[in-house]
Amino acid sequence: MPAVTWESTAAAGEARAGTLHTPHGEVLTPAFMPVGTRAAVKAVDTDDLRAVGAEMVLANTYHLMLKPGADLIAGLGGLHSFMAWDGPILTDSGGYQIFSLDPKITEEGAIFKSVYDGSRVELTPEDAVATQEMLGPDVAMVLDVCVALPSPRDVVESEMRRTLRWAERCLEAHTRPDQSLFGIVQGGVDRELRAESARATAELGFDGIAIGGLSVGEAPEDRNAALEAAVAELPENKPRYVMGLGDTDGLLDAISRGADMFDCVLPTRLARHGRALTTAGDFNVNKTEYTDDDTPLDPHCQCLTCSRYSKAYIRHLVRMKELSAHRLLTIHNLYYLLDLVRGAREAVIEGSLDSYIHEVRSRRVSEST
Amino acid sequence: MPAVTWESTAAAGEARAGTLHTPHGEVLTPAFMPVGTRAAVKAVDTDDLRAVGAEMVLANTYHLMLKPGADLIAGLGGLHSFMAWDGPILTDSGGYQIFSLDPKITEEGAIFKSVYDGSRVELTPEDAVATQEMLGPDVAMVLDVCVALPSPRDVVESEMRRTLRWAERCLEAHTRPDQSLFGIVQGGVDRELRAESARATAELGFDGIAIGGLSVGEAPEDRNAALEAAVAELPENKPRYVMGLGDTDGLLDAISRGADMFDCVLPTRLARHGRALTTAGDFNVNKTEYTDDDTPLDPHCQCLTCSRYSKAYIRHLVRMKELSAHRLLTIHNLYYLLDLVRGAREAVIEGSLDSYIHEVRSRRVSEST
Repeated sequence: MPAVTWESTAAAGEARAGTLHTPHGEVLTPAFMPVGTRAAVKAVDTDDLRAVGAEMVLANTYHLMLKPGADLIAGLGGLHSFMAWDGPILTDSGGYQIFSLDPKITEEGAIFKSVYDGSRVELTPEDAVATQEMLGPDVAMVLDVCVALPSPRDVVESEMRRTLRWAERCLEAHTRPDQSLFGIVQGGVDRELRAESARATAELGFDGIAIGGLSVGEAPEDRNAALEAAVAELPENKPRYVMGLGDTDGLLDAISRGADMFDCVLPTRLARHGRALTTAGDFNVNKTEYTDDDTPLDPHCQCLTCSRYSKAYIRHLVRMKELSAHRLLTIHNLYYLLDLVRGAREAVIEGSLDSYIHEVRSRRVSEST
Repeated sequence: MPAVTWESTAAAGEARAGTLHTPHGEVLTPAFMPVGTRAAVKAVDTDDLRAVGAEMVLANTYHLMLKPGADLIAGLGGLHSFMAWDGPILTDSGGYQIFSLDPKITEEGAIFKSVYDGSRVELTPEDAVATQEMLGPDVAMVLDVCVALPSPRDVVESEMRRTLRWAERCLEAHTRPDQSLFGIVQGGVDRELRAESARATAELGFDGIAIGGLSVGEAPEDRNAALEAAVAELPENKPRYVMGLGDTDGLLDAISRGADMFDCVLPTRLARHGRALTTAGDFNVNKTEYTDDDTPLDPHCQCLTCSRYSKAYIRHLVRMKELSAHRLLTIHNLYYLLDLVRGAREAVIEGSLDSYIHEVRSRRVSEST
C-alpha cells in the first residue's frame, strides 16, 4: 500500500476532483500548496496557513539540506515537528533550485555551489532521496534535470532521458514506507518528448507523477500542449502535480487538463512586493489612488486581511515598511489562490467547470486595472 | 463626566489594582500597552494583540501626523477604524520623539525636522491637541518638554515649568468630549521638582496623569525616588501612567509604587533583534547552544509561539531572516510582559504583591543566563 494514494470524487472532461490520502491527513484536490522554502511560508505561521485553507505545504530540500541541515531536522523529529505543521508536506528534490545555479551535471549527479557559503556541494539522485527521507515529508520528489526553455531539442531530449535514469535510481534508493516518492516528467514544450517521458515515468510505478520544467517563461499555449501530451499518458488513479504553477490563468488551464496539485511562490512573493491578487485582477496597493480607500483589497474576499483592514491601511503599512504588511498581503494572496482552486474543485463536482472558468476570466477582464 | 475614569479594585501598600473605563471598553490595571508607533504594533496584527492579552494600545502622534497624516486618518473614521482596533487607544503627544530630534523650543512650541523628508515642522501645544482630536484615541497626552538626564537643575526646572504652562494651554484647547486628556509630570530625578510638578499638574484637573521623562538611562533608585515623590502628590482616584517603562524590574518597581499604566517599545524591539523575554531571564535565541533545542522559548509560557515552536526552529527563522521570526518573538515577548503585569494585578488583589515580586526576581536571578 503506497503511503500516499489518490481517490477520484468526480470528473468533468479531463478535469478531476478527488482526495489525496497521506500519512498526515487528507487533501482535497485540485490543491494548491503554499511554498515554505526554509520550512516556513514567508511572513506567516502554520495557524495562518490553516486559516487561509491550506491543507498541504511544500518545503525546499535544497535550502533545508544546507541550512539548518537535514540531519538536524531529522534529530528534531522531522519537518512536521520542526515547522509545527501536522498536515501533509511535500518536499521538492532540489533539482529546480540547483539548475538555476549553473551546476555541473554528470551521470552521477549535480555539482554546484552553496548559496550560503559558496562551498562545493554534490547531490546525486540517491543523496536527494536520502535527504528527503531524513526530512520526512509525506511526499518526496526524484532528482530531475531541468533545462532552460527554449533549449535545443537534443538537449531537452537527453536531459529528459537522464531524468528517467535518475528516477530509476531514486526509486531503487527509496526505503521509507511512510513516504511516497513522485516521479517527474520532463521534455520541455515538445509534445513527443513529454509523451515519452510521461509514459516511461508512469511505467516506473511511482505513487504520483509530477510535470516539471514548465512555468519557466514558455507561452501558455505551449505549456498547455505539453501538459496535454503528458497527461494523456498518465494513469487515471495517480495524483498529478504541476510544479511551480500558480497564476490564475495557468491554474485554470491546468485543472481543466487534469492536473491535481500545484505549488508556486507567486502569491507570497507578490505579497512582499505590495501586490494583491483579487478576483478583479492584480494590483499594487502602494498606488496613490488607494491613499484614502477604505474598502478591503477585494470586496469578495473572506480572508482575515479583507475582513479587518482597508486598502488605505495596508498601503500605509507597505509605505512605512511595516513587517505586518507582508503578512497581511500574504494571507490575502494565499486565501485568494486557495479559494480559486477550491471553487474549481466544486465546479468539477457540479459539472460547471467551464462556466466557472468563464466567470473568473470575465470578471478579471472587465474589472482589471 | 470624563471620557476616561479609573475605579479602584484593591490596594496593597502604594500598589493598586483597578479598572480603567474608556469609550472603547475597560482595561484592567496595572496595564501594559504595546506600542503601535505607526498605527501598527510592529510585526503583529490586532488579532495577535487580542490573543496575547493586550487591552489598550499606544500610537505615536509624531509619526502619524507626518505619515499618513492626521487628516487622512480622521477622514477614514479615526485611529480605531484605521488600524482595526476597537479597544482603547492612547496617543502620545509627540513630545518624546520630537525631543530626540534636537528641536528648537520656544514658549510658543517646538520646531523640528521631519524624519521623513527633512522638512521644517512646528508643533505647538494646541497643535498637539488638535492633531490628537483628529486621530481620535480614547486618551490624548499634553505636549511636554523632555530633558536629557542628567541636565543642570535649572534646565530641568525651567522645562518642567514650561510643561506646566503648555499643559494649561492643552487643557484650554481640548474640546472632544469622548476623549480624555492626560497631563504629564516632569522634573527629572529631582524629588522636589517632581513633587512640585505632580502637585501642579494634579491641580489642573486632568482625567489622568502621566509621569514622563523617566526610563531614559537614569539609575533605578533615582527613578524610583522620582516616582515616589510624584505619586505622593497625585489624587487617589485618577489613573497614573509611567511613560516608556517596560523592563521587568522597572515595571515591578513602579507597580509597587502605585503606577497603573505603562508602555514601552522594549518587548517588540528586542523581538526584532532575536531576543526573548522569559521568566528565567532574557536571552538571544540566535546562540549556537539552541541549534537543536526542541524546547519552547519559555516552558512556563502559554503564548502561541511557545505552544507551537521550539527554540531550534525560532533560531533557524532568525538566522534565515524569515519575517515570521519577528512576529513569533514579538508575540512571545508581549505575552510575557502582559502576563507579568496581569500576575502583579492578581497579587495586589490577593495581598501578595511582595511575594510575587520576590518570586519573579528570584527565578530570574537563579536561572538567568
